[in-house]
Formats: sequence, structure tokens, C-alpha cells
Amino acid sequence: MKPIAAIIMGSQSDLKVMQDAADVLKDFGVDFDLTVVSAHRTPDRMRSYASEARAKGIKVIIAGAGGAAHLPGMVAAYTTLPVIGVPVKSSNSIDGWDSVLSILQMPGGVPVATVALNGAKNAGLLAVQILATSDKTLAKKLDAYKKKMEDDVIKSAGVMEKSRK
Amino acid sequence: MKPIAAIIMGSQSDLKVMQDAADVLKDFGVDFDLTVVSAHRTPDRMRSYASEARAKGIKVIIAGAGGAAHLPGMVAAYTTLPVIGVPVKSSNSIDGWDSVLSILQMPGGVPVATVALNGAKNAGLLAVQILATSDKTLAKKLDAYKKKMEDDVIKSAGVMEKSRK
Amino acid sequence: MKPIAAIIMGSQSDLKVMQDAADVLKDFGVDFDLTVVSAHRTPDRMRSYASEARAKGIKVIIAGAGGAAHLPGMVAAYTTLPVIGVPVKSSNSIDGWDSVLSILQMPGGVPVATVALNGAKNAGLLAVQILATSDKTLAKKLDAYKKKMEDDVIKSAGVMEKSRK
Amino acid sequence: MKPIAAIIMGSQSDLKVMQDAADVLKDFGVDFDLTVVSAHRTPDRMRSYASEARAKGIKVIIAGAGGAAHLPGMVAAYTTLPVIGVPVKSSNSIDGWDSVLSILQMPGGVPVATVALNGAKNAGLLAVQILATSDKTLAKKLDAYKKKMEDDVIKSAGVMEKSRK
Amino acid sequence: MKPIAAIIMGSQSDLKVMQDAADVLKDFGVDFDLTVVSAHRTPDRMRSYASEARAKGIKVIIAGAGGAAHLPGMVAAYTTLPVIGVPVKSSNSIDGWDSVLSILQMPGGVPVATVALNGAKNAGLLAVQILATSDKTLAKKLDAYKKKMEDDVIKSAGVMEKSRK
Amino acid sequence: MKPIAAIIMGSQSDLKVMQDAADVLKDFGVDFDLTVVSAHRTPDRMRSYASEARAKGIKVIIAGAGGAAHLPGMVAAYTTLPVIGVPVKSSNSIDGWDSVLSILQMPGGVPVATVALNGAKNAGLLAVQILATSDKTLAKKLDAYKKKMEDDVIKSAGVMEKSRK
Amino acid sequence: MKPIAAIIMGSQSDLKVMQDAADVLKDFGVDFDLTVVSAHRTPDRMRSYASEARAKGIKVIIAGAGGAAHLPGMVAAYTTLPVIGVPVKSSNSIDGWDSVLSILQMPGGVPVATVALNGAKNAGLLAVQILATSDKTLAKKLDAYKKKMEDDVIKSAGVMEKSRK
Amino acid sequence: MKPIAAIIMGSQSDLKVMQDAADVLKDFGVDFDLTVVSAHRTPDRMRSYASEARAKGIKVIIAGAGGAAHLPGMVAAYTTLPVIGVPVKSSNSIDGWDSVLSILQMPGGVPVATVALNGAKNAGLLAVQILATSDKTLAKKLDAYKKKMEDDVIKSAGVMEKSRK
Repeated sequence: MKPIAAIIMGSQSDLKVMQDAADVLKDFGVDFDLTVVSAHRTPDRMRSYASEARAKGIKVIIAGAGGAAHLPGMVAAYTTLPVIGVPVKSSNSIDGWDSVLSILQMPGGVPVATVALNGAKNAGLLAVQILATSDKTLAKKLDAYKKKMEDDVIKSAGVMEKSRK
Repeated sequence: MKPIAAIIMGSQSDLKVMQDAADVLKDFGVDFDLTVVSAHRTPDRMRSYASEARAKGIKVIIAGAGGAAHLPGMVAAYTTLPVIGVPVKSSNSIDGWDSVLSILQMPGGVPVATVALNGAKNAGLLAVQILATSDKTLAKKLDAYKKKMEDDVIKSAGVMEKSRK
Repeated sequence: MKPIAAIIMGSQSDLKVMQDAADVLKDFGVDFDLTVVSAHRTPDRMRSYASEARAKGIKVIIAGAGGAAHLPGMVAAYTTLPVIGVPVKSSNSIDGWDSVLSILQMPGGVPVATVALNGAKNAGLLAVQILATSDKTLAKKLDAYKKKMEDDVIKSAGVMEKSRK
Repeated sequence: MKPIAAIIMGSQSDLKVMQDAADVLKDFGVDFDLTVVSAHRTPDRMRSYASEARAKGIKVIIAGAGGAAHLPGMVAAYTTLPVIGVPVKSSNSIDGWDSVLSILQMPGGVPVATVALNGAKNAGLLAVQILATSDKTLAKKLDAYKKKMEDDVIKSAGVMEKSRK
Repeated sequence: MKPIAAIIMGSQSDLKVMQDAADVLKDFGVDFDLTVVSAHRTPDRMRSYASEARAKGIKVIIAGAGGAAHLPGMVAAYTTLPVIGVPVKSSNSIDGWDSVLSILQMPGGVPVATVALNGAKNAGLLAVQILATSDKTLAKKLDAYKKKMEDDVIKSAGVMEKSRK
Repeated sequence: MKPIAAIIMGSQSDLKVMQDAADVLKDFGVDFDLTVVSAHRTPDRMRSYASEARAKGIKVIIAGAGGAAHLPGMVAAYTTLPVIGVPVKSSNSIDGWDSVLSILQMPGGVPVATVALNGAKNAGLLAVQILATSDKTLAKKLDAYKKKMEDDVIKSAGVMEKSRK
Repeated sequence: MKPIAAIIMGSQSDLKVMQDAADVLKDFGVDFDLTVVSAHRTPDRMRSYASEARAKGIKVIIAGAGGAAHLPGMVAAYTTLPVIGVPVKSSNSIDGWDSVLSILQMPGGVPVATVALNGAKNAGLLAVQILATSDKTLAKKLDAYKKKMEDDVIKSAGVMEKSRK
Repeated sequence: MKPIAAIIMGSQSDLKVMQDAADVLKDFGVDFDLTVVSAHRTPDRMRSYASEARAKGIKVIIAGAGGAAHLPGMVAAYTTLPVIGVPVKSSNSIDGWDSVLSILQMPGGVPVATVALNGAKNAGLLAVQILATSDKTLAKKLDAYKKKMEDDVIKSAGVMEKSRK
């Protein structure tokens, strides 16, 4: 199948965080690209990747990076697809603040949909929500997913309440 | 026309920031709801608004709030539509950090697409990008918008270069 | 006995912090509810829990959560009981700042009594102090507790002073 | 009438913030003391004030201070009454962070119920909520207050919605 | 004369800060380019500008930007010339932290020489110092500049000391 | 001998940090008190300790505490002796920021001489410097100490330079 | 008279903050030097000033600076006199954090007694306290000063209490 | 060969970070000095080292330090050579913020080229880029280095893409 989503990251080492996004897309049956694209070390690859994404059928891009994290914002500079940015708390980051601020604080005109520090799981879910705006099957799966989360909490509440008796 | 987007904010005073989102949607010809919904002062209204949004035809919700900004996250708790959060630097905020962190740092399972502090313009554009994943006319308008931004910068570059001669 | 206090938390994993509040209430002989209520994953459960608390005889609610911690504030949106918020330094938190700010910075009209990061013990004591405003037995126990704390410090001072001789 | 609440502040200049707490107590018909007590400049006055408060009939103390704000915590050291701390963003404060952290981060054993930076209004409401745990009239007034807040938001929502027609 | 230095900025509005760099280069008799190059709005222009700079005779590039400031880092991705980054405290910045961190925290392999927030004057001086590593005339001018700074402080010290007599 | 300095700390657990101050005083032959004094748990003990210190012959007080660290400031409220504050990064501290700010940001009129986070060694040295303002023997020892530090660095420089050959 | 204290600052513009220290010393009748010494622009002047201070009869040095504030720490590197550092919130500072941290966080061996941001008044008082360790007249003046502060607060408390009647 | 670059650090323990700079210079065949120079403990050594560097043939100085990191700025005070500052996250640092801010926030007139926290590798590369402004062989090596980085990323991208098949 042709991928309709993409997960890219600035470095191979980001995969331990970004895998959560891949897992969500797999669970929802969304085909996706998964690769390394570095804004700083492969700027031309980033440029082609971002500029050609829409034509290749990609509808949403998840980009994760750490430190002075320019990948999500620069991908957004080259495409009008929705770009979801995942700030990664990499080893060279100052407690994650640099990753968060360099992804979040984009200037007017070039949005990046930022999720929590290391929030790759939510990046995956947000991508599904975006695709679900025109895909009823996905929308139903999201409802089921939400229902299950609720049930799980209620179950764990039951366990906690009982364990006191 | 029936609105397909919604712009909600925690307080009337947030409108001076959130108007930017409204302007973008208007410019792109996207019909939208615009109203006040307070998570803390009207929790039931928030609940109905969020739970009924999909059925009413809304495809994406922009929610702006400041301080301990719970509106975007709680709306996301009640719907599976994509929710875009705008941290507002309101008067009761600590330099905006509280607004940013209470919107951005959502737990796994309930994403909010966060934009920059006071970044309502980008919230509007992100909403258009999301709608454009299934609307080619909007996608073309986004390309034109991007082209115009580029042209404007090139023009201003020309002005700066000339003014030195 | 019917509980007059409640300890709720956004996730089962918060119990390792919140147990301190439970221990204090137990020590003071205050009956309490202890359960999981997630603002984001079980918003309806949170709503019923909060709205019905007063009628059930609850007089004070302790709510702990981490990251974009909306539970204390949203519970306070649904009840006029005093709500004590415990910012939990959960694994997905940015050094605890997100937990602290999303609980502390509530807008005018909807107060949350915030204690220190991971300060569940003080949340328990504050609940007892609140109950003690109309319960002389509890007030006396608080005095005894304070006296014992003082004695313990004086004892440890004695130990330190002697160990130098 | 004998006051059952107290509002104290580290300096006369904090009154412009703390007045909000006084206004709330007045509106709810709660009698209260209002005075200046400085932890650093009048430590003995603070000690007597705090130690004698319970005997004088005070049931809850609101203490506001800025910078290295020791007043709320030191008052809590001298009494077992609930102490509500209001971090004031005074002129000598570093963006309010010092006020917030020196009030919030109390050690285990000596709680302070902290509200938002400059959040004196919520300090007043929290005091009323505490008193209302044993006063049904106050509890009813709190419900009415909450209802009015909700109505006001709904009204302002109506205004915003209409002004677009 | 052919420019050997370049001053670029993400937006025309950055000129009020970046002018200081231009003034320094002018004072030292260094020819330079001055223009607007936006990483996010004109990524292709940035790419050509950066990749062609060395061939055009440019020896050092000063790049100023604010918010999620990707310009200096992305220019450094496209060239091996020394790139000096000036974090600009623009209106959409969170107290300048975002500008500073997105320029400073570059990953290993792609350095940016970062100066203080709004430190365009020092960016100009650093550029001169770099050029002076192979230009004795510039090196002498730097010594003179340093001497003058010293003299000015000593003069102002004299004034302050006298004004007390 | 009668102690002329005092080292006090908010809790026994602070000794692992504060021991450094004790070691310095011992090395310089300064007699000192060492004990636990908690502002929050033993406010009366703190009051007597601080008010009586001068009369007992104490000339300088070193006070260490963590979290909402009120000990140094409150001791300074009760005495006009120089008080040196050591912010301790205790387990309940938010990365040390709370300890630093609650000690450093004292209001005008009541100074605390603050040293670095966990900087007990420098607190000891500062105490010696203060005592040395009227004690030539101590002043000479300080010169020797400084000389030895310099020698040690020069030695370690020699080692590093050689180890490359 | 020969000065026994010194007030130095990195730039003439710091005088508007540092004047408070001068006023205190004047009020207590302490003779002092007042001048500009820049660590970065006049390093040799700083070196002689600091190394010769003790021999000239100076007993305590107050040094104020902003931004990357190296003056207090470098003066402490050149003398064993007590050095009091005043972080100045200068125009080029990031909300004062840089000034505070570059003065406070001195390495072990070279202490600086740091006061609050812009806390020049307390720097003056701390200098007096240090001198008073061997000067009973000054010690008495400090007691009187403290007493007056207390009286002033009690007076302002009286005013506030009366103005409600 | 005579060294044309220098790597200095405030303490022997900084070598574990600063070694990265040494490795880069070695790889590029640049001769360099490597030693310990402490601003606070050996101010005279620092002064001679910095003032004599240019005469000795040094063209660029890399200086690393942690905490209140004054070494890079003070070296820059004594020379007009380009100085590259490496903020080291040493054990006595507050999460690295103090190191970063005391190096970055230099006043106008005395620039320091700051790299990322612990970014010694980039300090080495920046030094090479500066030397390469007048050395074509180095410039070519930099191009090769950049090309290799790009190739490595593309290779790792290939690995990630394949490992999913």
C-alpha cells in the first residue's frame, strides 16, 4: 500500500521515542513511511522529502527532533501538509526546553502542530485524527480507542478501591 | 453555510489574540463557529460543545486559553476531532509559561496540537491544512498563500538591499 | 464509616506519591475515599465524582496529577468544596514545572489549594486542618502532631551536637 | 462581629493585590481582620499574630507576600489553622518565580495552600470554601456564585456570537 | 568592493537589532551584504544564499532571528563558513528563551557561534575578529578599539569619583 | 573555646551538604556551633537561637536549607549578625530553584549573603573572610589558602600538558 | 577619612541601582570608595583595584554588574576580602537570570556573597553587618535600624487597620 | 609544530567534555595547546595566557567552564583573538543554565562565540571553520567532513527503512 503518513526523525537515536508514533499508526492500520531526515546534516534530503511528500500521497508528516530542533519547522517551510512536531529530550538537550521551544515557537505563516516532550504516541494519534476528518472508519476506531482508555481507567479505579478493603 | 471549524476561547478577553485565527479562516473561505467556552466556569457547556461538535459537522476545533489553560485538553477529552490549542499570554499568566505547559504537556492518549504562545494565526492555518487533506481547493489556496509569503519576503529583501545604496 | 475526604489521582502510577496523603488521613482517623479519576480519559466519571461529592458527605477533595495536570482544576470547576491539588512529578513531566503551573495558575473564581511538587503529605495535613476548623478533636491532634515534629527536630539537634564531642 | 478570617500581607504595598481577597470576604459576609505583618521586619508581631489567631476565633488565614516570601510559611509554622498563601508579583520579584516557589515548596509537615501569582481573589474564595465546610449558608452562597459565573460566561458567549452576524 | 561578510535576518523587523552589527562592520571598514533571508518563508532563497556564499567571496555570515529561530542553524547546514547567530528578542518570543535556545543548542557537526540575546554588536565584532585572523590591519584596529573601550571606562570612572567630592 | 561562628541547618539530612562548611572552619581553626534549627518545625528554637547568637559571642551565622528555604532569611530577621545562606538541593526541591530563590530574594532591610546551590564550602570561606576583617592571622591563612589553590591548578595544568607528549 | 568599604560597578549605568548601597553606607557613617571598574573592558584596572584593596585599608567590597556579570567573581579571584555581589537587571539581561546566576554560582574556593536582583540596599547593609563584627558602634546602629523598620511596619499596620473603620 | 589554536578549561574535570574539541582539531590536523587555566583560582595565569596568545601564534582560543563560568569572557577581555566558549554542565551547575548564561550574555564590546551546553565538538569545528577562512586545505577538509556526515545519515536512513521490511 502507498503510505499516507510519514514519520521522520533527525537521528537514528530518536527512534526509541518515535517508535510510539509508529505503533499507533500500525494499530490504526495507517500506512506510513519511517525514516531518518536530518535538517542540519541532510538539508537537501529534507528539502526533497518535504517538497515531494504531498505529490507522493502523504497527507500528514510527523517529525521528531531534539536540542535546536529545526526539522519540524523546516519541513513545514517546504510543504503545506500538516506537520506534527515531537520535541525529543535527547542527550544534548537542556532538560528538553530547547527541543520544545524550537519546535513550538514557529512564526506566523508556518505552523507546526506540537505535542508534549517525547509525546510521540500523541503525535501518532493526532495524525490519525487528522486523517479521520475524511475517513469514517478511522473516526470509528478513534471512538473505540477512547472508549477503551476510559474502560481501562475505570478498571484500574476498581482495583485501587478494592485493594483497600 | 454550516460551520466546519470552531474557534472557542476561555474568556471574552482572549478574542484580541484569537481574532487572528478567525481572520485566517475567513480569508480561506472556511465557515466557522466563534464563541466563549470556559472549562472552569462553564464545564457543562464545554462538555456539550465538545461532545456534539463532530455530529454538528465540525471537523477541527481551535481552543485558546491562558494561565492554567485546561480548555484545549478538556475539549480533547470529550471529542476525537483534532483540537488545536493556542496558549494565550493573558494578564494572569506567568510570562506565558503556564499557558504553554498546561496545553502542550498532555498525557498519552489525548493529543492537543499546540501552536506558539499567542499563535492564533498559525492555529487558523493549521486548521486549514487539516481541512485541506481532503479538499483540493483549500490545498491550492495554501500553496498560493505560501507563494505570497515568499514573494513578500523577497520584496522586503529588495527594499533593504536598495536602501543601502 | 462514611468518608468525609477524598483522594483521587489521574493515574494508578500516581499512587506512589499520593499514598502519603492517605497515610496522613489514616493517622488522623479521617475516613476517606481513594480512587483513580482521570480528567482526560474519564471526563464523565470526573464530572459525576466532583458534582456528587458534597451530597455524598465529602468535605474536602485531594486531587493529584502530573504533566498537563487538569484534574484538580476541573474538579474545582464542578464543585464548591475545597480542592487541594498535588502536582506530581510524573515521568512525562518537564521537571515538574508543567504539573505545578497547570494546577497552581487557576483563573479567578475557581480556586485550587496547591501544595508542593509531590507534596501529598502536606495535602493530607491541609485536609485535616480544613476539617479541624469545625472539629476540636482533630484540632488537638494537629497540635500534638506539631509538638511531636518540634520534639523530633530538637532530638536530632541533640544528636548532631553530641556526635561532634 | 468577631472576625473568623484574617488577611495579612508583608507590606502595605501588597494591598493593591490583596484587596481582591478582602472584597470576596465582604461579598460573602465573612468578618475578617486586615493588617500588615512582616515576617522579616516584624518577626515577633508575626509570631504573636499567628500563635494567637486560633484562640481569637480566626479559622483561616490568608497571607500574601512577594520576593523571598516567607510570611505564609512562617505563619503556618506557628499555627495549625489552614494558611492560604498568595504569591505577590512585587517590584523586587524575578517575574514572580521567587514569590511562587518560596510559598509553594513547603517541607512535609507544614502545609500552605498556595493560589496563583497575584491570585488574591481565589484566596478569598478558598477561605470561604473552607469556612463553608461547616456553614451551610456559605455553601449555598458559593453555589449561587458559581451559577452566576456560569451565566456571565454564557451571556458573553451570546454577545460574541451575535456580534458576528 | 566585493563583500567579505554577510548580515542576514529572518524579517525586516529584525533590522532595529541587527543594525548594530552593520555599524561595527562599517566602522572597521569591512564590506558586507545586508539582506532579509527567511528560513521558514523563503527556504529556497536561504539555501542558495548559504550554499553560494563561499564562492561569492563571503568569509563569515551573521544571521539574526527570533522565536523558533532556525535561520542561523539552517545556514550552517548549507555552508562550512563560520556562522554567527544573533538571538533576537522579537515580539513573538517567550522572553527571548526560544530565540536563544534554538540558535545555541545545535547538534554536534553543525556549529553556530552564538552571541547574547540582541547581541548584534558583538556579532559584528566577532566577525571582525574572525577576519582579523588573517588580516593584520583589522587586528590592529581591534587593539585600538579595545584600548578605546578601556579609556572610556576609565574616563567614566573619573567622572563618577569626582562627582562625589 | 567559645564558638564565634555557627552552622545551622533545617534538617539533619542537610548535613551531607553542610559538612563542607564545617570542614573549612575546622581547617582555619575557627570554633563553631553545629546544630539543627528548623524554621518551620522549631520556630521558637530558631527565634531564641538567632536572637541570642550575638550575646553568646557568635559573629557570623551560616544557615543551610532546601525547598521553600526560610531559615536563613528568618534568622536574619532576628539578628543583625551577618547571615550566610546556603541553598541546599534537597530531595523535595525543584532542581534547586526554590532553595536558591527563597534565600536570595530577601526584601530590602534584611540581607542574607547567599552562596551557590550546595555551596557550603564557600559559605565556610566567606565566614572566615568576614572574621578576617578583624583578625590578621585568619587573613594570612586566607592568603595561603588562595596561594595553594593557585598552585594546585598550575600543577594539574602541568599534568595535563605532559600527558599529551 | 580613609575609606574602609568600596562600591564598584561594571558600568556607569549601574549607578541608578548601586546608589542604594552608597546611601546605606552614608547613613551608617561608613567611608567608602565609589567607582566604575569593568571586568571585561578594564581587566587590568580591576586586577589592581582588587589586589590592592586590602592594603589600602578596604575591608569589604560591594560589586554590582549585569548580564554575564563577571566583576564580583573576578574581584573575589584577586582578593581575600569579603566580596558582596549585586546582580543588576541591566537592559541587556535576560530578565535578570544571567546576572543572578553568573554572580551566585561561584566554584568552591572563591566565594561571593550574593544579594537579591537589584538588591544594592541589602549589599550596603551586609557590608555594615560585616564591619560591625568588630565595631560596636556600628552594631548598635544596626539594632536601631532594625528597631525602626519594625516600628514603621507596625505604624503602617495601624494605618491599614484604621482605614477600614 | 607551533600550535595555532588553544583549548583551555577551568578545571581538570572539564576534560571529559573538552576532549571532543581536541579530537576534532587532531582529526583536521590543527596543532593546538591543551591546558588548565582557571579564571578564579589562577587569574594571573589566565591574564598572561590570554594576553600572550596572539604573539605566540595562537589564532583562536576555545575555553570551557561550568557554573559561574567566567573563563571564556575574561579571556576575551584580555585578547582580540576570537574566543569560543563551551558551557560545561559541571557537577556544581544548576542544570547547565548558569554555565550557558555566564558565557553567552557578554556585554557589547567583548564577544564570546558560544556553542551548546557541553558542545565541545562544535567548538572544535568552529575553530577549524575560523582557521579555514584563510586556509583552503582546511576548507576542503570541512567540505569532506560535511559530505561524510550527510552520507552517514543517508546510510542510517537506509538501515531504518530496510529494517521494517
